[in-house]
Formats: sequence, C-alpha cells, structure tokens
Amino acid sequence: MEKPPTTAYADNPDVDRLVSDLIGRVADKWTLLVIEVLEQAAQVRFGALARAVPGISQKMLTRTLRQMERDGLVRRTVHPVIPPHVDYALTALGHGLAAAFCPVWTWAETHLAEVEAARAAFDAHT
Amino acid sequence: MEKPPTTAYADNPDVDRLVSDLIGRVADKWTLLVIEVLEQAAQVRFGALARAVPGISQKMLTRTLRQMERDGLVRRTVHPVIPPHVDYALTALGHGLAAAFCPVWTWAETHLAEVEAARAAFDAHT
Repeated sequence: MEKPPTTAYADNPDVDRLVSDLIGRVADKWTLLVIEVLEQAAQVRFGALARAVPGISQKMLTRTLRQMERDGLVRRTVHPVIPPHVDYALTALGHGLAAAFCPVWTWAETHLAEVEAARAAFDAHT
Repeated sequence: MEKPPTTAYADNPDVDRLVSDLIGRVADKWTLLVIEVLEQAAQVRFGALARAVPGISQKMLTRTLRQMERDGLVRRTVHPVIPPHVDYALTALGHGLAAAFCPVWTWAETHLAEVEAARAAFDAHT
C-alpha cells in the first residue's frame, strides 16, 4: 500500500512551510552558480561575477545578488574610490549555504554520465 | 587584491559546463520539493504528490516529473488495473540526489531565523 506522503517537518506545519519557502528561494539555479563563484574568491566585482556565471543576464545577476543580500547571504561593499566600485562577498551565513550545497556539486560531477545515459534512453523511447 | 574567480572545474571547461548545466536543472525549487516528498514514501500517486507539494500547479508537477524521469531520477509506473493508475518513485540515482540535498534542508531549518532577521534589517533600510 502507498504510504501517505508527508512533508519534512509535518509536526510543525508553520516551520515546515517557512523552510519550504526558504528552500524554494535558495534552490535556484542562479543563486547556486553565484554562490559557487563567490565561495572561491574573497570578494568579486559585478563584472567579474557576470563573466564567471555563464549565461546569466545583467538583470538576472542584479536580481539574484539583491535577493542574496536581502537573505543575508551576500555582503555588498561600495568602495569610495574614483571611479567608485562595488564588490560582493559571502557572509558567514552564505559560506554555510555554500558548504551545504557541496554534496550536490559532487553528486552532479559523479553522476553526470548516468544522467546523460538516462536522457538518451528516455529520448529514444518518446 | 581581488582574486580572479574561476568556476568549479576550470581545468576541464567541458565538464565544468555540463556540471553547471546539470546543477541548473536539478537546483530547481519544484524538483527539490518533489524529491523530498518521494524520499519519504516508496511510491506516490500524482494526486498525492500534488497535495504534498504546496503551491505546485498540475502543469508544473507534470513538467517537473517528466524532467525528473528523463534525468533518471524518477521511475513512473503505470498499473494495469481498472481504473488504471500511475505512480512515481525515486530511482537509486534520485535517492542519491535526495541525500545530497539533505544538508541544504538542515541548513534552511537551522538558519531560518537568521535569514528572517537579515530580511527584516534589509527591508528596514531600503
């Protein structure tokens, strides 16, 4: 018989919903790719980030960084030099999320060939 | 000085791009929420999944399950009963991805209050 599915923290539906919301926010392709670049450098300028995340538009990078700043994952620093420049760095909270995502990168690297084989088999039968 | 950012597997740009693509596919809010429900039950019918993932539309659930099936994460079984029914279960590959995402759920549960405080502080200053 099918076991009725429950969500992660069914004993506290409020926490469950908030955690699901937060997961929905951070489990985002661009957030994950930006965090990966920021994890490898102390601080990165906007233009360097845009070059390091293939396929991201300037608008989407701006939006992603603003959401990450609002969530406390990223610190934005404006340097009062001439010409002024702005750079971005992970906060301690952001470093923690980057570490939590590590096994997902390892999984993707390890199972890439399996996923590609599954896709080829699926496409051959549909 | 700013260290030039590099992507994860800069020694092999092809693998790097494929891994980033795969991360972009699986680091998706709905994939993550669906995997979490499937992780807790041996097999789940479409309707039960739709109820267990708050906010997902029927169209988005169909699309997410089809992508997950194509990626080899989910097995779709049609039972030849009257009336016929279809259920979904994680494959070994899908269970592996679910396990890789575990620390992200733990991070979200642990740091929920910090994220909410960061949001409140950000909103108060913008």
